[in-house]
Amino acid sequence: MRIDHVAIAVNNIDLALKNYEKLIRINKMHIENVAKEKVKVAILNLEDTRIELMEPTAQDSPINKFLNQNGEGLHHIAITADNIEEDVSRACSNGLRMLGDVRKGSYDRKITFFHPKSMNGVLIEMCEAIAH
Amino acid sequence: MRIDHVAIAVNNIDLALKNYEKLIRINKMHIENVAKEKVKVAILNLEDTRIELMEPTAQDSPINKFLNQNGEGLHHIAITADNIEEDVSRACSNGLRMLGDVRKGSYDRKITFFHPKSMNGVLIEMCEAIAH
Repeated sequence: MRIDHVAIAVNNIDLALKNYEKLIRINKMHIENVAKEKVKVAILNLEDTRIELMEPTAQDSPINKFLNQNGEGLHHIAITADNIEEDVSRACSNGLRMLGDVRKGSYDRKITFFHPKSMNGVLIEMCEAIAH
Repeated sequence: MRIDHVAIAVNNIDLALKNYEKLIRINKMHIENVAKEKVKVAILNLEDTRIELMEPTAQDSPINKFLNQNGEGLHHIAITADNIEEDVSRACSNGLRMLGDVRKGSYDRKITFFHPKSMNGVLIEMCEAIAH
């Protein structure tokens, strides 16, 4: 297991990118609309890890709700699973609370989330490794 | 550049560890008192990335202030610099606002922080790679 990415809720991806480029040498970037989650994501590729800037694409996007409550800032961290079915099953049998089923996220890979109440206030995504 | 670690403010490291062990396969763990920052840190080693659980060790610890304002949760992310002096100097000349000078953090490596106001609400640490 390793940290796959850190996701940041922002009001506007283009403006946020201008800030992040001041600090970070981005190897390459990928912009994706994840329609199901009502979010546009700029994925900044660093060496073997990623920063995702997420902008809501609808009033009822969960990211819009987050921004209204908290303002811009850290939204979740994602951990690469060794084997997503096994790792999710182990976590659930340990009593952790999932948010939604295992489903497809960006890069078309399987993801799910665990509730911040189970994880000391941190929303944690578990995801498959990106296929190379 | 890559994500080095994600740091989470918690009230009690021992209780938080019980949660994190339910989800994450931890390769090894390291507990360190960073007296200067008034914080005790449990560093959970994943494959080439780390999760740090931070518990305040004094009433006037900045982590105590964070917990009082926000409760437990994501506190900052850290990016490994390619060359910390050059990368910090580049960021500052781009107008980003540092929080404190370059100084020694956990693992005795050079670190500094950039202000969340410069970075869409995210406190970002820049650190040297861990010497192996």
